[in-house]
Amino acid sequence: MTTRMRAEIGEQPEALRRTLDSLLPRIADVGLLASRTRQVLFIARGSSDNAAVYGRYLTESQTGRLATLAAPSIATTYKKKIDLSGVLAVAISQSGKTEEIVETLSWAADCGARTIAVTNGHGSPLAEAAELALLTEAGDELAVPATKTYTTQLAALAVLGVGLGAQVDLADLRRVPDEVERLISETEASPALSQIAGELASVPGTVVSGRGMAFGTALELALKLKEACYLQAMGLSYADLLHGPIAVVDADTPAILVAADSGPTLPGTVALARRVTSEGARAYAVGGGAELAGASSLALPGPGLPEWVAPLALIVPGQLLVEKLARTLGFNPDVPRGLNKVTQTD
Amino acid sequence: MTTRMRAEIGEQPEALRRTLDSLLPRIADVGLLASRTRQVLFIARGSSDNAAVYGRYLTESQTGRLATLAAPSIATTYKKKIDLSGVLAVAISQSGKTEEIVETLSWAADCGARTIAVTNGHGSPLAEAAELALLTEAGDELAVPATKTYTTQLAALAVLGVGLGAQVDLADLRRVPDEVERLISETEASPALSQIAGELASVPGTVVSGRGMAFGTALELALKLKEACYLQAMGLSYADLLHGPIAVVDADTPAILVAADSGPTLPGTVALARRVTSEGARAYAVGGGAELAGASSLALPGPGLPEWVAPLALIVPGQLLVEKLARTLGFNPDVPRGLNKVTQTD
Repeated sequence: MTTRMRAEIGEQPEALRRTLDSLLPRIADVGLLASRTRQVLFIARGSSDNAAVYGRYLTESQTGRLATLAAPSIATTYKKKIDLSGVLAVAISQSGKTEEIVETLSWAADCGARTIAVTNGHGSPLAEAAELALLTEAGDELAVPATKTYTTQLAALAVLGVGLGAQVDLADLRRVPDEVERLISETEASPALSQIAGELASVPGTVVSGRGMAFGTALELALKLKEACYLQAMGLSYADLLHGPIAVVDADTPAILVAADSGPTLPGTVALARRVTSEGARAYAVGGGAELAGASSLALPGPGLPEWVAPLALIVPGQLLVEKLARTLGFNPDVPRGLNKVTQTD
Repeated sequence: MTTRMRAEIGEQPEALRRTLDSLLPRIADVGLLASRTRQVLFIARGSSDNAAVYGRYLTESQTGRLATLAAPSIATTYKKKIDLSGVLAVAISQSGKTEEIVETLSWAADCGARTIAVTNGHGSPLAEAAELALLTEAGDELAVPATKTYTTQLAALAVLGVGLGAQVDLADLRRVPDEVERLISETEASPALSQIAGELASVPGTVVSGRGMAFGTALELALKLKEACYLQAMGLSYADLLHGPIAVVDADTPAILVAADSGPTLPGTVALARRVTSEGARAYAVGGGAELAGASSLALPGPGLPEWVAPLALIVPGQLLVEKLARTLGFNPDVPRGLNKVTQTD
């Protein structure tokens, strides 16, 4: 049986092609709206929040603008106005219907921010509330764990980064759909996929770590392992892991390490894999090239893309791992217990 | 045997008194330095990062200034300059010696920010690097899990908030040391302390949740459970928990819910306790008054303090729980495996 989640993982190359075709022509619109702002404030929850983490690192490392994450409860629970003049507020929500996010974006506008929505919800309240809507073209997503709505959000955020002035080669962004297609095949052909799923099936928890541009990928993989496999998965940056939680990594608690196969965060990730394995724990690599694979117990392939755009594909082997692990554990990944497709929080 | 950690928990009333005596006279200095800025950017890791989460909610909800958390790797790994004019950068580190934090604060100054250090390291590199040092008076802390250095950081951040213009009653802040003293006695006299520790001793993991002003407390309690009890503890805001991770809460995975006993986040926390217990899982309250206790399976007392200042004491029952659970599990909480007192990350 093919799960809905697996089918939607396979739909990502087309979804990314459609999204890039639709959004690359909007780069100038982003630049115009952003020209009167000096910094970015992302507003998001769940998988969209993990996409925002990519957005912040991309924006800060490539455009020289401060980019941080909002605390929605200031708007929705504390109902406090703060000074957001000069701020570009970017709200991200796959459905565009989560009231908390719509309310927080409207609050940001009232506080003086310019507003952009990144959403797959064409005609949604969020798209309507923003000055500029970057609509992703993921199509309908039926499995509860977000896959193609997540990677197309990342594509929209890459377009946002370019609109904000990132000095990058757009050809690398255009290569992403083909690279995702190749990576799906390569991952499914790898014996490590079944081996890692088999090992994770017998542990109570795992730590997922990445840094900088790949930190959002680590958070997203941890979230997927929690929601579809009910695994106690902690997503942590490399540095935060060393500030305490490294204590939980032992023979029963493996670490999953994600990295692009180049870039300034790779050496630290490789060193972390060595530390984990030297302490008798298992380290599973996702991406990071031959160097990270060599330092890890088992390794899944990663994309052949520069670091700034690698996250758009780096989550894909993780998605396949989650889907396989859920089935290995006897769960249906399409319908996790206790979750709905549109989460309402206040 | 009394552990070093337990002794240092007991030293918090005096440490808080000394810190407040020392820092309350610095309110005007904070105001002067901040007058040429419009927003706050916190720089921290580990427990200090959890203190920063309190700082951001306090600042945003009480002063109308945007307050967010920095990504240190932009400074230290990507080595990218970003525009921080108009930003007040506040670096927090108990030792003041973590190179990553010192380097990131210096980077912030180079990027145009004004700078404050919050540290227990008198004469430390971080204190020297900042324009204004808010020195905490915790004294020497020998147990690896931070207790009195954490709560005195929160006291310094409360002083920061007042310096930034928070309209609060300083008498509530001055009441904190006595309230911590009372809360230690009340918690140790409560049968729930042993009961909760006994139940947590047999589960692989737990979720710790709080929202808004209490979110940092949830993160800090989760961190302590990880580093001293090797428990898979996930700290999540109430809203993030509902966006996926709620799926992991079941009969084997209890939830610990922290809240002040008043304030706008209390109703949501009470509702979450009801949801958790209605699904057959255990919910343990820390604070939240009679309402949260009534909705939970077991409850630890909380401080009788207004929400804005409650976090300075709300972590204390959690510290006592961690210390007791570590001993119940046969661990020495003073010296967790794999950790040093001063964490060096790059």
